[in-house]
Amino acid sequence: MLVVMKNDATEAQVQAIIREIENMGYRGVPMPGALRTAVCIIGNQGPVDESRLLVMEGVKETIRVTKPYKLVSRETHPESRAIAVGDIKIGGGKPVIMAGPCAVESEEQALTIAHLVKKAGAQVFRGGAFKPRTSPYSFQGLGEEGLKILAKVRQETGLLIVTEATDHTNIELVEQYADIIQIGARNMHNYSLLRRAGHSSKPVLLKRSFAATIEELLMSAEYISSEGNNQVILCERGIRTFSDNTRNTLDLSAIPSIKESSPLPIIVDPSHAAGKRDYVISLSKGAIAVGADGLLVEVHHDPAHALSDGMQSLYPEQFGELMKEINTLIK
Amino acid sequence: MLVVMKNDATEAQVQAIIREIENMGYRGVPMPGALRTAVCIIGNQGPVDESRLLVMEGVKETIRVTKPYKLVSRETHPESRAIAVGDIKIGGGKPVIMAGPCAVESEEQALTIAHLVKKAGAQVFRGGAFKPRTSPYSFQGLGEEGLKILAKVRQETGLLIVTEATDHTNIELVEQYADIIQIGARNMHNYSLLRRAGHSSKPVLLKRSFAATIEELLMSAEYISSEGNNQVILCERGIRTFSDNTRNTLDLSAIPSIKESSPLPIIVDPSHAAGKRDYVISLSKGAIAVGADGLLVEVHHDPAHALSDGMQSLYPEQFGELMKEINTLIK
Amino acid sequence: MLVVMKNDATEAQVQAIIREIENMGYRGVPMPGALRTAVCIIGNQGPVDESRLLVMEGVKETIRVTKPYKLVSRETHPESRAIAVGDIKIGGGKPVIMAGPCAVESEEQALTIAHLVKKAGAQVFRGGAFKPRTSPYSFQGLGEEGLKILAKVRQETGLLIVTEATDHTNIELVEQYADIIQIGARNMHNYSLLRRAGHSSKPVLLKRSFAATIEELLMSAEYISSEGNNQVILCERGIRTFSDNTRNTLDLSAIPSIKESSPLPIIVDPSHAAGKRDYVISLSKGAIAVGADGLLVEVHHDPAHALSDGMQSLYPEQFGELMKEINTLIK
Amino acid sequence: MLVVMKNDATEAQVQAIIREIENMGYRGVPMPGALRTAVCIIGNQGPVDESRLLVMEGVKETIRVTKPYKLVSRETHPESRAIAVGDIKIGGGKPVIMAGPCAVESEEQALTIAHLVKKAGAQVFRGGAFKPRTSPYSFQGLGEEGLKILAKVRQETGLLIVTEATDHTNIELVEQYADIIQIGARNMHNYSLLRRAGHSSKPVLLKRSFAATIEELLMSAEYISSEGNNQVILCERGIRTFSDNTRNTLDLSAIPSIKESSPLPIIVDPSHAAGKRDYVISLSKGAIAVGADGLLVEVHHDPAHALSDGMQSLYPEQFGELMKEINTLIK
Repeated sequence: MLVVMKNDATEAQVQAIIREIENMGYRGVPMPGALRTAVCIIGNQGPVDESRLLVMEGVKETIRVTKPYKLVSRETHPESRAIAVGDIKIGGGKPVIMAGPCAVESEEQALTIAHLVKKAGAQVFRGGAFKPRTSPYSFQGLGEEGLKILAKVRQETGLLIVTEATDHTNIELVEQYADIIQIGARNMHNYSLLRRAGHSSKPVLLKRSFAATIEELLMSAEYISSEGNNQVILCERGIRTFSDNTRNTLDLSAIPSIKESSPLPIIVDPSHAAGKRDYVISLSKGAIAVGADGLLVEVHHDPAHALSDGMQSLYPEQFGELMKEINTLIK
Repeated sequence: MLVVMKNDATEAQVQAIIREIENMGYRGVPMPGALRTAVCIIGNQGPVDESRLLVMEGVKETIRVTKPYKLVSRETHPESRAIAVGDIKIGGGKPVIMAGPCAVESEEQALTIAHLVKKAGAQVFRGGAFKPRTSPYSFQGLGEEGLKILAKVRQETGLLIVTEATDHTNIELVEQYADIIQIGARNMHNYSLLRRAGHSSKPVLLKRSFAATIEELLMSAEYISSEGNNQVILCERGIRTFSDNTRNTLDLSAIPSIKESSPLPIIVDPSHAAGKRDYVISLSKGAIAVGADGLLVEVHHDPAHALSDGMQSLYPEQFGELMKEINTLIK
Repeated sequence: MLVVMKNDATEAQVQAIIREIENMGYRGVPMPGALRTAVCIIGNQGPVDESRLLVMEGVKETIRVTKPYKLVSRETHPESRAIAVGDIKIGGGKPVIMAGPCAVESEEQALTIAHLVKKAGAQVFRGGAFKPRTSPYSFQGLGEEGLKILAKVRQETGLLIVTEATDHTNIELVEQYADIIQIGARNMHNYSLLRRAGHSSKPVLLKRSFAATIEELLMSAEYISSEGNNQVILCERGIRTFSDNTRNTLDLSAIPSIKESSPLPIIVDPSHAAGKRDYVISLSKGAIAVGADGLLVEVHHDPAHALSDGMQSLYPEQFGELMKEINTLIK
Repeated sequence: MLVVMKNDATEAQVQAIIREIENMGYRGVPMPGALRTAVCIIGNQGPVDESRLLVMEGVKETIRVTKPYKLVSRETHPESRAIAVGDIKIGGGKPVIMAGPCAVESEEQALTIAHLVKKAGAQVFRGGAFKPRTSPYSFQGLGEEGLKILAKVRQETGLLIVTEATDHTNIELVEQYADIIQIGARNMHNYSLLRRAGHSSKPVLLKRSFAATIEELLMSAEYISSEGNNQVILCERGIRTFSDNTRNTLDLSAIPSIKESSPLPIIVDPSHAAGKRDYVISLSKGAIAVGADGLLVEVHHDPAHALSDGMQSLYPEQFGELMKEINTLIK
């Protein structure tokens, strides 16, 4: 870390900084410049708590040189991590396709879609039993009944199951029924839920908040890992920007960024980013071409009667086309 | 609501839309234009579920004319709402000043600051016992011990207490000790926590997420109100933008916007927006001049040794100056 | 267009709106709702000037149903437009690759790079003779000498030339030497330059401003077309967001959006978006997979001594790898 | 400047960096850390050209410690600068109020409004003769006829005149007629126009682009100053964000930021930021309370028939109220 002094900082203030750095157990090396002095901290093994320095007299700002996470850092874990679920591996190999409806609506709906996506080549079935909704008046999911339907889908089709836990009241249930526990974008900052997921033996699919930097996403993965669960799959699903042609702006540069900074696998959800069915196939191809380890795609056999997000769900024949295109790309 | 058809939509598709609107219990009136037709929905008393229409053939988009919230809407509740807490009222009168440290660190620290801010004119003491932190390695608050210290502060100074509940494990405790339950920006989308706060008899201070529109903030207030608790105080604390001169960009236009759309009071937290002590006084004056119903300000008697956010905490003498400036503005 | 009245608008105000719409030569149809009335404008052939209505008593807002551009609109020009330059076509066929240094630095530099990119498969050579720079103290380009070098590159290699006109003082020169006139992102709102480009017989490569919506980009293309030049190639090069892992956030959803709204071809500049050499290959593959009509890529044989943007320039061998990967994608 | 090496950088790479720094005429001091080494550059009097270092082997990134501007920097010019125009001073004293219509439409319109704002207390009259418009089909201003009307306004009322130069074809004319040359937000990156304004003897009002950081605004001011014109007045007018309750998000924190970084005066345009008349008064009060050196406000005696931006123009009586409120604030 570098502590930049104000350009009118006194020599006494610089010395006070150096003493404080020594109190913290490190060494402080002054670097006089034309306009001002900076003090470099050396000897630290992990993150330095900058707050004690920032508040001292004469300090302009601090500049971090090292990342604040370590369990999910490529620097400390150079080898890419593949997450094993059932008989598949997410990361490092062929992209894994997760597909299904936004919400589980009925056994018939779930099974119909599951058979269709299985046949087209998906390996994991997605579908929400608990739905976080912006409006208290919208459909909130079938709850445990939905989870039971998901279990039946697995039994009948052999597909693995990923479904969202939205809070402490349902994460234990989700853990029992699901193969992968999804933490949604709105919960990326819900630290008690992250810690709870960190105690699970099941892999966690952690979605990037639409307002989070890559570093913050990795800090949330660090929360999960710091409780012992290293099986974290990251998911880019679009960020909030001024651009209004899609619901969120899909940030595919997150893929090379995360691969550079972290050993964790990263998949892409093009459906929530686009908000429009017609863009999903092209953005999916883009995600795979950029290097995503998988896709999370919404598919519904009857979008016109879907209880949520029908507008962005692919028709089964579109999903079939998507799979064909993806297979062409990766062959 | 207006349903805009694609410009190659057929007459049969338009008729299908009109029939579906009638199935929903409303009337659909076609409006042919030069390039395309739109269908206007009339007769609805509340929000229309657009998802059933968006997925139909020939539909380009829907455009909402009415807001999706009603319990917190100025249209249905024209009169501004003042929230009574202890012997003060928040909203509609003199601005209420809430001040104190980011985190409660010790009884001595809390009492020292409380006496100072009380003397300068604050009416409510702020201080976190449970802290949501981006890093799992940062100080997470004193927990119930912190709440007990806050109770002591109230007893000794007569200040009211606002403190944050970060999840289901601590909201019941916070409710017992606090006069106002704070829901932080990162939890604005934590719907189960919002619902739980909606069952409380205590007023709720709801902070705007740094990525939320005004409408989404009001939808979160609607969640609380829909469970029966109408005592919601909103708080603007900066939004995330490309601009990097402050930690977040304080959006003071939120004040006239919210006052136009909702009867709820709105206060401003300049400390978290600015992230720098030196901007807090000027932004506080701006907030009051624009019409905020109060301020939530960080003050620490010894910022250099604060365990969190020391950099943005005012020194007690700065807070005294702030109070003097505010009093000049509102006299 | 829809004129939404305030919910306390009087009948007389609604009638005044209808009369004003009739004065404008259209018809106004009132649509009474539960809370408020809206008035639909019908009979307009082109964009309606909403400003006269927005300022009338009782009006809450207007909502546009039709787009404000027409010359570059897919609705009025359904067929995709291919722009012919020399013996190539941009749009509708195989992606066109434009490559070269950020700035022309010397004849030797330009020719060296040109031969390398030609050999790897590029069809167009890029290189700036006039450089818009954030700092007045940075290298501003070789000017006409640079253009002469570009002409020599064309003569020696057969590559077509794209280079930027930054203002009225150099657009005439650029027009003489270049095959395609580039208008940079910072000039997308420079309407007098757009109009001047609209008088040219040369195709124009119009880059999206990092702060522009797709609609604004198309409005700027409309400026060029409204002066008679229909040969406009659009270019996505990243938008400004809060996300800090790349210089700008590459918005690949711009591709399906533009293809839906406009017949114009759209290419992608991954170099300026990423700002980092290591991301350029993967983002290029993503752009082509999503459906871009071409790429604009920075390549330098000696990035360590480039006078501008060396950090994001590919090494020649990386460009060779890029071309191989692209050819695999599109075969 | 600090050059941060990759954590696998070799000692030879570090030594190469140090040699290159010495070639540039400075000294390079290595700072070994736990994970990686950084090299500090000392001895530079002005900005260092980081591009030569960024492209070298083993370099991860560079971190600037000093600002890239100097003529408009508070560090090199500690004293606040007041710009004298006619008999007023902008900066350092009482806020200066500039008011008038968006566009000059006729002599009668301009004179009517000018007399009204003069009477209410404005010192400068604003009004566009050349209008940059997003659509080529919108009203583009009266041109030189408009400038002649502005001259008449000055003669009849004694108000000073500020009006916009949109390109090289009109800046010379604007310079002849105006007291202050306005450079609009869309031209903040138009470097040839900035340089031309730098040759003028008239003060320049430079508006912040809706996508510019404070540093970029100051770099544009540096462009003007580097040509010899030190009389630059900055203007905050809202930035583009995801927030949709106003046209742009007014960033009042720009005021303390600019005052910290630069000696230049900064005024605020609340009209373009808000886009809605009803928010203009409250945001104006906020701007003055935060410390703005003036306001630029749109006023129209008949907004319903304004040719542009009528929706955000104050009625004369509202402007009168605004002046009264401002006078209360600053007394």
